Amino acid sequence: MIRTGLIGYGYWGPNLARNFAEAPRTELVAVSDLDEERLQLAASRYPAVTTTTDHEALFSDPEIDAVAIVTPVSTHFDLARQALAAGKHVFLEKPLTETSEQGAELVAAAERAGRILHVDHTFVYSGAVRKIKEIVDAGELGDLYYFDSVRVNLGLIQADVNVIWDLAVHDLSILNYIFPIEPTAVSATGMEHVEGRPATIAYLTLFYETRAIAHVYVNWLSPLKIRRTLIGASRKMIVYDDLEPSEKIKVYDKGVAIGETKESIYDTMVSYRSGDMYAPHLDLSEALRTEVDHFARCIEDGEEQLTSGAAGLRVVRILEAATESLNQRGVPVELAR
Amino acid sequence: MIRTGLIGYGYWGPNLARNFAEAPRTELVAVSDLDEERLQLAASRYPAVTTTTDHEALFSDPEIDAVAIVTPVSTHFDLARQALAAGKHVFLEKPLTETSEQGAELVAAAERAGRILHVDHTFVYSGAVRKIKEIVDAGELGDLYYFDSVRVNLGLIQADVNVIWDLAVHDLSILNYIFPIEPTAVSATGMEHVEGRPATIAYLTLFYETRAIAHVYVNWLSPLKIRRTLIGASRKMIVYDDLEPSEKIKVYDKGVAIGETKESIYDTMVSYRSGDMYAPHLDLSEALRTEVDHFARCIEDGEEQLTSGAAGLRVVRILEAATESLNQRGVPVELAR
Amino acid sequence: MIRTGLIGYGYWGPNLARNFAEAPRTELVAVSDLDEERLQLAASRYPAVTTTTDHEALFSDPEIDAVAIVTPVSTHFDLARQALAAGKHVFLEKPLTETSEQGAELVAAAERAGRILHVDHTFVYSGAVRKIKEIVDAGELGDLYYFDSVRVNLGLIQADVNVIWDLAVHDLSILNYIFPIEPTAVSATGMEHVEGRPATIAYLTLFYETRAIAHVYVNWLSPLKIRRTLIGASRKMIVYDDLEPSEKIKVYDKGVAIGETKESIYDTMVSYRSGDMYAPHLDLSEALRTEVDHFARCIEDGEEQLTSGAAGLRVVRILEAATESLNQRGVPVELAR
Amino acid sequence: MIRTGLIGYGYWGPNLARNFAEAPRTELVAVSDLDEERLQLAASRYPAVTTTTDHEALFSDPEIDAVAIVTPVSTHFDLARQALAAGKHVFLEKPLTETSEQGAELVAAAERAGRILHVDHTFVYSGAVRKIKEIVDAGELGDLYYFDSVRVNLGLIQADVNVIWDLAVHDLSILNYIFPIEPTAVSATGMEHVEGRPATIAYLTLFYETRAIAHVYVNWLSPLKIRRTLIGASRKMIVYDDLEPSEKIKVYDKGVAIGETKESIYDTMVSYRSGDMYAPHLDLSEALRTEVDHFARCIEDGEEQLTSGAAGLRVVRILEAATESLNQRGVPVELAR
Repeated sequence: MIRTGLIGYGYWGPNLARNFAEAPRTELVAVSDLDEERLQLAASRYPAVTTTTDHEALFSDPEIDAVAIVTPVSTHFDLARQALAAGKHVFLEKPLTETSEQGAELVAAAERAGRILHVDHTFVYSGAVRKIKEIVDAGELGDLYYFDSVRVNLGLIQADVNVIWDLAVHDLSILNYIFPIEPTAVSATGMEHVEGRPATIAYLTLFYETRAIAHVYVNWLSPLKIRRTLIGASRKMIVYDDLEPSEKIKVYDKGVAIGETKESIYDTMVSYRSGDMYAPHLDLSEALRTEVDHFARCIEDGEEQLTSGAAGLRVVRILEAATESLNQRGVPVELAR
Repeated sequence: MIRTGLIGYGYWGPNLARNFAEAPRTELVAVSDLDEERLQLAASRYPAVTTTTDHEALFSDPEIDAVAIVTPVSTHFDLARQALAAGKHVFLEKPLTETSEQGAELVAAAERAGRILHVDHTFVYSGAVRKIKEIVDAGELGDLYYFDSVRVNLGLIQADVNVIWDLAVHDLSILNYIFPIEPTAVSATGMEHVEGRPATIAYLTLFYETRAIAHVYVNWLSPLKIRRTLIGASRKMIVYDDLEPSEKIKVYDKGVAIGETKESIYDTMVSYRSGDMYAPHLDLSEALRTEVDHFARCIEDGEEQLTSGAAGLRVVRILEAATESLNQRGVPVELAR
Repeated sequence: MIRTGLIGYGYWGPNLARNFAEAPRTELVAVSDLDEERLQLAASRYPAVTTTTDHEALFSDPEIDAVAIVTPVSTHFDLARQALAAGKHVFLEKPLTETSEQGAELVAAAERAGRILHVDHTFVYSGAVRKIKEIVDAGELGDLYYFDSVRVNLGLIQADVNVIWDLAVHDLSILNYIFPIEPTAVSATGMEHVEGRPATIAYLTLFYETRAIAHVYVNWLSPLKIRRTLIGASRKMIVYDDLEPSEKIKVYDKGVAIGETKESIYDTMVSYRSGDMYAPHLDLSEALRTEVDHFARCIEDGEEQLTSGAAGLRVVRILEAATESLNQRGVPVELAR
Repeated sequence: MIRTGLIGYGYWGPNLARNFAEAPRTELVAVSDLDEERLQLAASRYPAVTTTTDHEALFSDPEIDAVAIVTPVSTHFDLARQALAAGKHVFLEKPLTETSEQGAELVAAAERAGRILHVDHTFVYSGAVRKIKEIVDAGELGDLYYFDSVRVNLGLIQADVNVIWDLAVHDLSILNYIFPIEPTAVSATGMEHVEGRPATIAYLTLFYETRAIAHVYVNWLSPLKIRRTLIGASRKMIVYDDLEPSEKIKVYDKGVAIGETKESIYDTMVSYRSGDMYAPHLDLSEALRTEVDHFARCIEDGEEQLTSGAAGLRVVRILEAATESLNQRGVPVELAR
């Protein structure tokens, strides 16, 4: 039983608290937040749980095995470092840290402390993404041509981070999980639309050593909410629409013919190979529950981590490079290997 | 009555032939193609029309007022130049030419000859695009934030031009028509997926002197056909989905709140201002018919051209710069003013 | 403050409990269920609340002002009668009762006791249905032509009631609320698909003194979940799709031309008057919360009831007649006035 | 080569003319219409074809093998009878005739004359319907539970026939083709909304000796165009949406659990067995072309007719009974066997 203390009972924290409280192998024993009102809300929901405005009390409490940190990214590094230093396992909200230097330091710290550093890339634990991973690992798709992801909605323009750090982190964690190949460079463009605020819209392109290409489009100012990823490959193609109630994944047995035809130079509409489509049945259980269970097994059974600090660091390196490229209107930035 | 000869009865030619034959102010008098079979097909459909494999016969025929050129882009420059030299008005398939130098030369030639040079940017004449133009010109949207367009499907990978020259030309002509502001630079990325063929997927970003940004995503290898443009602005936003049978345009009275709230740094999902949406009724008559009528009025009544050679040249300049940027993995290319 | 006791903490009960506990003018003070497990769950969520397997304890408790009854329909009559006899206000799950006789008796009992008898027609309190009511009351639609509702999904085939009593009750309560006109007769057809079980699929038609007609299609064996109502009228038409995340209501300025044309006898596809469509912004707050607040205001401020026992009785009369008609393969059954 | 004469070049006639002209085994030799303008249009499109206002000229022309009759239903009986008497094969627009008596007489006349009487149930020849037939014949579905079809749009209210005879005929011909079992009775309801015009909206229920039930909903006054059929069965279920551009058919491996659970009486939302869905690739070639080819093979090769006069008669018998039931507000009408 992993006794867990949670720091940050704001927007996302309550979801984590609920899962740590209800999951079979974890227990919610303490909640910390700077805001008394939030603490009272937590107390009313979990009468048995200790609440405090002093998060350090969680680090010093020998009864606590793990700490879930659900605070603004600017605080991730210090809080996680202290928690690891105090011998706690850490479940850290995404993105891992503000900089890759900080991220590398945390990864090393967890290594030294022999503790689990888990980054909350929630989508990796969804039934849909796990199913895509399964299909890809079975070799059903063939060679990867492209990974094209759109994550847009009408959201609040944040003060501290640009839209890439807020939204693209999801797509990059999904991409890295399904296709664990290292991008060689990233080109990004975008624009800020509010005086003194970071970019509200951004486009990222990732390059690889192969002919694969990845693109992520994120936007805080879209009238529509779209969550759709197209995966193109040599044998099959996948459409993943996270807003579909049940058929979130569609696998197309579609391809394209190469070769001249008299019509070819005119005709660009016709599809040349088109077989059946199927939508696999998905496990619709809550991703966060699956994730919390996994976190507990990593600690207790040494299960291999799916979203370790190292995975979080790979994403942060891309976010950093993308922001650098965005500031140069798309000049590609190499990713250190 | 504009007596028109058509060169190129391949994939798109028959649509033009039908409209030139049926429109009230134009007459189809001759069709030329190198392929006898295609000529026979034309003859069976238009018994009264002269057919020939020699397109020069059309230039020398004093009975012909205008020539519609619907051939591969590599032939546009020579054919259009000859036609103009022969005193014919020219209806030229998109894209205008292979290079901006050729394009500039054609524009000058038309100028000298005092003839109409029309480029076939068909979508500009659709009820949907004309309605968007109307809404924008009425000032309903406020300041433009972004123009984001997606044009993907499963199509034939062409031998001569990359996907930008084939598909993005549509979005750029729509963009230039609705928002006649000059982009200052373009950054493009993409990838070729077939040995020795041009790029099959591409992403273009256009920069402006304002905070507006435009993006076009084109792909020949998508399992889904998507034709969707999002237009974001300070007061209202538009979604244009060309595959919708009737509600192709939706106007959203949506915006976003600026300013800190305690939740703000967590919350990115909630929409902060959300009013009604409306879908204006559209003129669903065939765009090509509207376009052919406009071409005739430009010749006979001196109506101002909506898609002149100059408009085609602006698009070609962007296509050129985009291809150059794509070859440098996104390095932005300035657009000469 | 309405101190409320809840009977039946099964599938729907917890939603009511949460709202009675959190709404400003109500308080959840006791929960009763025959199942100890369910009671423990309730206790863990609401430590301050009394739990008991003896529902009569709620009736005899002078501290309790109102009772919410969320039990199988077969128990509604007895429980509600006892509660009213004990001077409690009653919030009763739909459908009101198993028979119209029972329903009429409850309505009379509430009348005698001077207590509020509220039936839980939840949809009446949704932002979507309230908006439709607003539009209709404003006279925007003109004369009603038809109300056509579909409520199908893959659900459990119940043992005690047929699909009409389970699903159609929603559509009929919405219909009665928006168009408070009395149907004169009902014709229903349907079929049972499991040995010894009631009808799993059913079609209801309601007739009126005007040219209005209403139809409800319910099905427990549909592979798709559909929740859609079409409302046709002389001036405008409404499409209400409850599964749409935000644009649940679309108002069409559409009509049809009457009168001969040469084509008329062939042509049935063309729409003859087609103006704009708009989707009004909706209040998306939880219907159940709105309903519980309304219940409290009816008790404390004498606000007029939207879904009184009488409203529930009107629905039960239709359900009874429909079941009778269904058993005769559609023979219309007159509705007593 | 079947030399065909066509009577009625109005709304649908031109589609038939085109197919008879272009199909490999048929030839369009004559077109008759009472309207000179229509004849001129036909002549301009088919210069080699004889045009006449006297349809009897087609019957007396020994050069003509078959006659396609595309006229109002009130004229079907006389024209088809004359054509058969003159020894012509007949391709007759749907519905077969105005009455079942007329239909039976035509079937007998074709029998006597030893000529093919074909009724134009076009959808039977579509790739989608043929694929469903294939799946059903392969026994993939199990026992049929229901066939539920919706065909609504905003169309012209006709003067001569009600909406059942105009639209439901399509669904009934599809139903009879896929499931060749005889209904025992029909119950129908509906309403007319225009003074002196027939019903504009109607609902049909068909009963069988098994637990199967069929329902067809047709409406000329719908703001939405819907063409959707749900087929429920014991093992699998099919959704056929004819407006989907490519995935018109979806096959669901879904079913429902029978049996009590403690939750059962509350829970009606959860699906109890839910496997993969697949959308088979469809032959998207024009149904009418397939149909015309079939007509020719029936004549020349004695291929078995898919939509013979007898098939048309079965549909007319249902239309008659449905209209009779509609006039009695749903009283079921037995179908003679």
